[in-house]
Amino acid sequence: MIDIQRSPSSKLENTNFDNLLFGKVFTDHMMECDYIDGEWQKPVIKPYGPLSLDPSARVFHYGQAVFEGMKAYKDKDDRIWLFRPDENFKRINRSGKRMAIPEFPKEYFFEGLEELLKLDKDWIKKGFGNSLYIRPFVIATEAGVSASAANEYKFMIICSPAQAYYSGEVRVKFSEKFSRAADGGVGFAKAAGNYGAQFYPTDLANEEGFQQIIWTDANTHEYLEEAGTMNIFFRIGDKLVTAPISDRILDGVTRKSVITLAEEYNIDLEVRRVSVQEIVEAAEKGELKEMFGSGTATVINPIVGFGHKGKKFDLPKLEDSYAKFFKDKLMKIQYNEAEDKFGWRYEVK
Amino acid sequence: MIDIQRSPSSKLENTNFDNLLFGKVFTDHMMECDYIDGEWQKPVIKPYGPLSLDPSARVFHYGQAVFEGMKAYKDKDDRIWLFRPDENFKRINRSGKRMAIPEFPKEYFFEGLEELLKLDKDWIKKGFGNSLYIRPFVIATEAGVSASAANEYKFMIICSPAQAYYSGEVRVKFSEKFSRAADGGVGFAKAAGNYGAQFYPTDLANEEGFQQIIWTDANTHEYLEEAGTMNIFFRIGDKLVTAPISDRILDGVTRKSVITLAEEYNIDLEVRRVSVQEIVEAAEKGELKEMFGSGTATVINPIVGFGHKGKKFDLPKLEDSYAKFFKDKLMKIQYNEAEDKFGWRYEVK
Ligand SMILES: Cc1ncc(COP(=O)(O)O)c(C=O)c1O
Ligand SMILES: Cc1ncc(COP(=O)(O)O)c(C=O)c1O
Repeated sequence: MIDIQRSPSSKLENTNFDNLLFGKVFTDHMMECDYIDGEWQKPVIKPYGPLSLDPSARVFHYGQAVFEGMKAYKDKDDRIWLFRPDENFKRINRSGKRMAIPEFPKEYFFEGLEELLKLDKDWIKKGFGNSLYIRPFVIATEAGVSASAANEYKFMIICSPAQAYYSGEVRVKFSEKFSRAADGGVGFAKAAGNYGAQFYPTDLANEEGFQQIIWTDANTHEYLEEAGTMNIFFRIGDKLVTAPISDRILDGVTRKSVITLAEEYNIDLEVRRVSVQEIVEAAEKGELKEMFGSGTATVINPIVGFGHKGKKFDLPKLEDSYAKFFKDKLMKIQYNEAEDKFGWRYEVK
Repeated sequence: MIDIQRSPSSKLENTNFDNLLFGKVFTDHMMECDYIDGEWQKPVIKPYGPLSLDPSARVFHYGQAVFEGMKAYKDKDDRIWLFRPDENFKRINRSGKRMAIPEFPKEYFFEGLEELLKLDKDWIKKGFGNSLYIRPFVIATEAGVSASAANEYKFMIICSPAQAYYSGEVRVKFSEKFSRAADGGVGFAKAAGNYGAQFYPTDLANEEGFQQIIWTDANTHEYLEEAGTMNIFFRIGDKLVTAPISDRILDGVTRKSVITLAEEYNIDLEVRRVSVQEIVEAAEKGELKEMFGSGTATVINPIVGFGHKGKKFDLPKLEDSYAKFFKDKLMKIQYNEAEDKFGWRYEVK
């Protein structure tokens, strides 16, 4: 069903897998599928290479574009696994709907993805933490700058090998002035423009010594929502809290999985609004034991401290952190090293 | 200073100027300037043609892109004019700053633009209402999907001939649920993603019989802000009101000019928050005489009616409308047919 054009050569041998920057090197092939005349055409897998687009293509001018982020893992027996790919498939269409992008068919998504992974399987390295980062995305390609939804689109999947990496200590700033999303806006969508809009405030936070921002609600800046590419959990005493999903917040697959695992392992977890004041007070009283982010790229990312209104707070270093607990549980499922009680694993074969 | 590569042929003769769709046909040349190694390189003018970009280019994934919209006019003596181009130059850098895009140099902007217009001057048709729509834009071109500001960009100018067009009667819907921008967000910037985010709500409004949406504040939806590509004025009795600029609202050049002209011609105009309630009440009492949009594309666009919470309102048809008054005053300045008291015209020669 899918047209496959094999690359005459491979970049694999020239790739240094011990020194990978995130999302910089791509595999030998990519999947492409065009939407023309009101229909998604037959998908094609072809050698990774540049796109040719008219300078007036809608994506350049109006940011009509959405994406996903997922990973493929290789287990000890060279079997290849995805983690809850159905969630990513559903989410790219949820994002697409909000951005007036036509729904992408499920069979094209899965067939294209699986064929691509089989073709580029040698790019997936074994070893806990190694993976292939998968980036499905859709861009509006129609030429012409009229400010309305395009009639032509391109769906693509590109893949980049990723290493288990240590991103250094992560300190976050609670946003006091800038916002990521409006009520009634597109924050819940993985819409391209949501990300570019975060770069400037994040650069300013970097200058103050924070690697990331925890976005607060745009109306009051009193409630903590999520980080740039992670949902956020706070541990007060032995209770975990995380903000509920809304039309401002991305419904993260990792977040969802942490919530399910917490239930499974009887860890007290509340999904409710989390106020800045509550977290600052807990930190002052020594009751804030952990903060961590959840997301496909880093799985679980511990946060060592935060800043708010000029004050900086450090979090304790725990032996038995929840961050470590969930990271280990999740990765064991992802790498086929533990029972898959919830049916989250999906084999590519 | 600018490198000019002339097109070997022209599409001019094959272009039907009596039947132009907005922003569909482009002139023979385009301007391009790359940001590499921390610097804007020498601008180039070359034949209009496709861009080749890596599928992982930042603009596709994170919407790091801004644009401008301006017009060139030809007067009876074939002289070419721009309208307040300095405002567009300053605004693209204001937008760029918020989107973490490096500042573009003034001399490149003006030299590039003027050389391009001189080269493609036959595309600018005489006649009140005819113009050349100019689209400067910047896109993040660096390959790689790490979620941070790019190190490489492309600044471009493309141009599209535009006709005086009648867009049909415009009815607007006051937004009740969807929002365009958050406080502390990027609404004041001409950032690509702001536009794509409006397509879906606008499509829904279209289905209800409204051509456009008047966005309200995201917090309460009680205050009227602006339309998709126009600022909005309301006439209650003989007083005009328009919302103040904020970090959610684009500081329109046309809006600014209307405000100055109102002062000049002693038309009562207030810049202040405009509540939905006030406008609905004024309409019910028959005191709402006009609503119109202001923007480069249509100059002044009269609005014939609006809808709110399921009710529809029609506005009266006036002989002596302010919309007509301002449109006429502005266009006469733009086409060099009236005195340019405020120094708004800029000749390309
Ligand atoms: C804004 C945002 N929040 C949270 C996440 C985490 O979502 P997931 O766990 O599905 O990767 C991501 C990354 O995908 C994101 O972009
Ligand atoms: C959101 C928005 N508001 C208002 C305007 C009108 O601005 P200007 O008068 O500078 O064209 C535009 C178009 O440029 C716009 O995109």
